Amino acid sequence: MTSTTSSRVDSATPQESAAMRRAFELARRGPAVDPNPRVGCVLLAPDGQTIGEGWHRGAGTPHAEVAALADAAAQRHDTRGATAVVTLEPCNHTGRTGPCSEALLAAGVARVVVSVSDPNPLAAGGAARLRAEGVDVLAGVLADEGRQVLGAWVHAVERDRPFVTLKIASSLDGRIAAADGSSRWITGPVARQHAHDLRGEVDAIAVGTGTALADDPSLTARSADGSLHEHQPVRVVVGLRDLPADAALRGPGGELVHVRTHDPHAVLAELASRGVRHVLVEGGPTLATAFLRAGVVDEVHAYVAPVLLGAGRSAVDDLGVATIDDAVRLVTRSVLPLGPDVLVVATPAAEAAAQTAARPSTDQEP
Amino acid sequence: MTSTTSSRVDSATPQESAAMRRAFELARRGPAVDPNPRVGCVLLAPDGQTIGEGWHRGAGTPHAEVAALADAAAQRHDTRGATAVVTLEPCNHTGRTGPCSEALLAAGVARVVVSVSDPNPLAAGGAARLRAEGVDVLAGVLADEGRQVLGAWVHAVERDRPFVTLKIASSLDGRIAAADGSSRWITGPVARQHAHDLRGEVDAIAVGTGTALADDPSLTARSADGSLHEHQPVRVVVGLRDLPADAALRGPGGELVHVRTHDPHAVLAELASRGVRHVLVEGGPTLATAFLRAGVVDEVHAYVAPVLLGAGRSAVDDLGVATIDDAVRLVTRSVLPLGPDVLVVATPAAEAAAQTAARPSTDQEP
Ligand SMILES: NC(=O)c1ccc[n+]([C@@H]2O[C@H](COP(=O)([O-])OP(=O)(O)OC[C@H]3O[C@@H](n4cnc5c(N)ncnc54)[C@H](OP(=O)(O)O)[C@@H]3O)[C@@H](O)[C@H]2O)c1
Ligand SMILES: NC(=O)c1ccc[n+]([C@@H]2O[C@H](COP(=O)([O-])OP(=O)(O)OC[C@H]3O[C@@H](n4cnc5c(N)ncnc54)[C@H](OP(=O)(O)O)[C@@H]3O)[C@@H](O)[C@H]2O)c1
Repeated sequence: MTSTTSSRVDSATPQESAAMRRAFELARRGPAVDPNPRVGCVLLAPDGQTIGEGWHRGAGTPHAEVAALADAAAQRHDTRGATAVVTLEPCNHTGRTGPCSEALLAAGVARVVVSVSDPNPLAAGGAARLRAEGVDVLAGVLADEGRQVLGAWVHAVERDRPFVTLKIASSLDGRIAAADGSSRWITGPVARQHAHDLRGEVDAIAVGTGTALADDPSLTARSADGSLHEHQPVRVVVGLRDLPADAALRGPGGELVHVRTHDPHAVLAELASRGVRHVLVEGGPTLATAFLRAGVVDEVHAYVAPVLLGAGRSAVDDLGVATIDDAVRLVTRSVLPLGPDVLVVATPAAEAAAQTAARPSTDQEP
Repeated sequence: MTSTTSSRVDSATPQESAAMRRAFELARRGPAVDPNPRVGCVLLAPDGQTIGEGWHRGAGTPHAEVAALADAAAQRHDTRGATAVVTLEPCNHTGRTGPCSEALLAAGVARVVVSVSDPNPLAAGGAARLRAEGVDVLAGVLADEGRQVLGAWVHAVERDRPFVTLKIASSLDGRIAAADGSSRWITGPVARQHAHDLRGEVDAIAVGTGTALADDPSLTARSADGSLHEHQPVRVVVGLRDLPADAALRGPGGELVHVRTHDPHAVLAELASRGVRHVLVEGGPTLATAFLRAGVVDEVHAYVAPVLLGAGRSAVDDLGVATIDDAVRLVTRSVLPLGPDVLVVATPAAEAAAQTAARPSTDQEP
C-alpha cells in the first residue's frame, strides 16, 4: 500500500474515500438535533491503516477531530504524518473547545481530506490555517453525501436562518379540515406516527394562534404508546392573540415561545437567535401561506389521505397565483406510502434546479 | 399421474390449478375493451396432459371453450373424458355462438373446473346444465385472480351498469385549475401519458359540458407522438348545453354521445344500453361531484402534482360532508410515482371493506 501523505495528490485515494464513508457513518451517530453539526473523523497512518476514529456527540463535547486524536492516543498510535479524513472542514475558532486546526497541527498530521467546506464564517478558515503550516488539504470529497449528513445545519448556516419544513396533512381534494372546522383525523395512524417522528428530529415546531386556539395541540413528539420522546422541540406560536392559561402548549413538552408578529422573517430571526437550525411549520393555512409567500419554505412534507371532503379550508390560501403558468412548482424528492396515506416530500424548484433534469417541452392535452 | 376425472374431487388438483393459471394467461390475450368478457380455456386429457387451448378474441368470434375444442380437434386429440379448465362458467345461452355447455357435452368432457361463476343472468346456468348431464363441475378455483382478469366486466354485469373510474388531476392543495380557470398543465408528461393509456383501456370517457366548452378537449387516446391509439373510447358529454359545430369532440376519435341530463344514473343506463362496461369520468368538478353523490364511483384515479395554487376550483364540490366523521373515506389500492407526480388509486370503503383490515381504534393527535 503506498503512502498517501508523501506526495501531494489532488483527488482522494480509494482508502481515503472508504475512510470518508466510514466518517459519514460516525457522524450519523451524533445527535440529530443539536445546534452543532454532525461531524465524523477517521485518522489514517501513512500506510493507510486506521489509527483513530471520532465523532461529535453534541454541544459541549469534543469536536470529531479531537475525539479521533484522543482515540489514537488511547491506543498509543503515532499521529505524526497521518491523514485526517473529516466530514466538515476543521474549525479555526475557539468556542467551548479549542480550534481543531491547532489540534491537528500539534498532532503532526500531514494531510487533511475534507468533504464539506465550513459555510460558517465564524468557524471557517481551518483549511487555510492548515495549508499555511504546510499541511496538504483536499476538500470537496463526496460533498453531496457530506451535505446530506449535515442536513438542515448546512442550509441554516448558509442562509443564516433555520431550515424550514412545511407540513401539510390534507384530503385528496386538498382540504385540511371539514366544513365545520373539524380536522381530527384526516390521515391515518401510520402517517401520524411518521409526523411525530419528524417532530423528534427538528429543533422547533411552529403553528399560528389560529391552530393553537382551535385545536389546543400539545405539539410534542410522542411514541405510538403516547410517551414523550426524549428530545422535545421548542414549541412556537405565531400571532398576536394570547393563549389561555390552561393551553396544552403550556403542559409537558419543549419550551414555549410565543412570537407576536405576522412576519415569517421575524419568526426565523428569533428562532435563529435561539440556536434553532430546523423548524417544522405545521400550519394552519394562514401561517403556511405566509411562509410560502415570504419564500422561506425549503421543503414541503405533504401527507395526502385517500379522503374526499368537498368543502372546508384548503391547505393553502391565496399565494398570488392568478394563472397556471405562475403556479408554485415543487420538485418531488420522494413518495412514501404510509398505510393508506402517501407522503410527498418536495422542494421549491429554485432549490432543486441544479439537481433535476429539465422537463421536456413537448406537452400533450391531459 | 392419477386421472382427475375418474372420481369426484371437491378441490382443484395441482395440474388443474396450473392449467387455470395458463387459462388466465390465455384470457389476457383477448381484447382489453370489448362488450364480452376475457375468457381462457385449457383442456386436459385424463392423464393430465394439455390437449387444447383457447381464448375469446372478441365479440363475434368463438367462445374460449369452443376455441379450445377446435384446437384439440385440429391436433386430432380425443376429448372424451377430458377436463375443461375455464376462467368463467361456460355459458348456457345461444347468442351469436351456440351455448358452450352443449359444445362441452357433445365433446364428451367429463369434468369442468371453473374460476368465476357467471354473474350474467342471461348467460348463466351452464354449470347446472352440465351437472344435470352428469359432468363433474368445480367452481371458484383461484376466483380472486379470475375476477381480476375479468376486470370491469364482472363489476358491470353484477351491478347492471358500467364500472366507473373517476379521474382527478390536481395540485397538492387539491385544485384542478388556477384562479383564472387555466388548467394546462398541472400534471407532467409522464402522468398525462399514463392517463392516455388508461383511456385506451376503457369503453367510454365522460366530461360535463362545462369542461367540453371551457377546454375544447378531443378526449382521444393518444401515444406520446400524438398518434391515435387503435381503440378509441366513446366520447360522452353530459349536460343540457349544445356543443359548437367545430368542437374538437366532433373531430377524429370515438363516437360522440351527448347525454342531455344531470342524472348520473341516466348517463350510466344510456351507456349500458350501448354495451359500455367501463367509463372513465374525467371531470370537471361538477360532474365528478354528481357521480360521487350518486354513489356510482367504483374507483378513483387521483393524479397529484407537486404544485401549489392557493386559489382556483377544487377537485370536488360540496359532497354534503359537514364534519370530519362524515368524510368520504376511500381505501388506497396503489400508489404509483409518475415522474414528479403521484397516482393514488383508491376505491370507496364499502367496495373494499371485505379486503382490508380495520383501522386501529387508538388514535393520536396529528
Ligand atoms: N390538517 C392539518 O394539517 C392542519 C394543521 C394545522 C391546522 N389545521 C386547521 O387549520 C385551522 C386553523 O387555520 P388558521 O389559518 O386560522 O390557523 P393558523 O395559520 O395556525 O393561525 C392563523 C392566525 O395566526 C396569526 N398569524 C400569524 N402569522 C400571520 C400572517 N402572516 N398573516 C395573518 N395572520 C397571521 C393570526 O392570528 P393573530 O390575530 O393572533 O395574529 C391568524 O389569525 C384549524 O381548523 C386547524 O384544525 C389543520
Ligand atoms: N384538472 C382536471 O383534471 C380537470 C378535468 C376536467 C375539467 N377541468 C376544469 O374544470 C373546469 C370546468 O368545471 P365544471 O364543473 O364547470 O365542468 P363539468 O363538470 O365538466 O361541467 C359542468 C356542467 O355539466 C352539466 N352538468 C352535468 N351534470 C350535472 C349535474 N349533475 N349537476 C349540474 N350540472 C351538471 C351542467 O351544464 P349544462 O348547463 O350544460 O347542463 C354543468 O354546468 C374547467 O376549468 C376545466 O379546465 C379540470
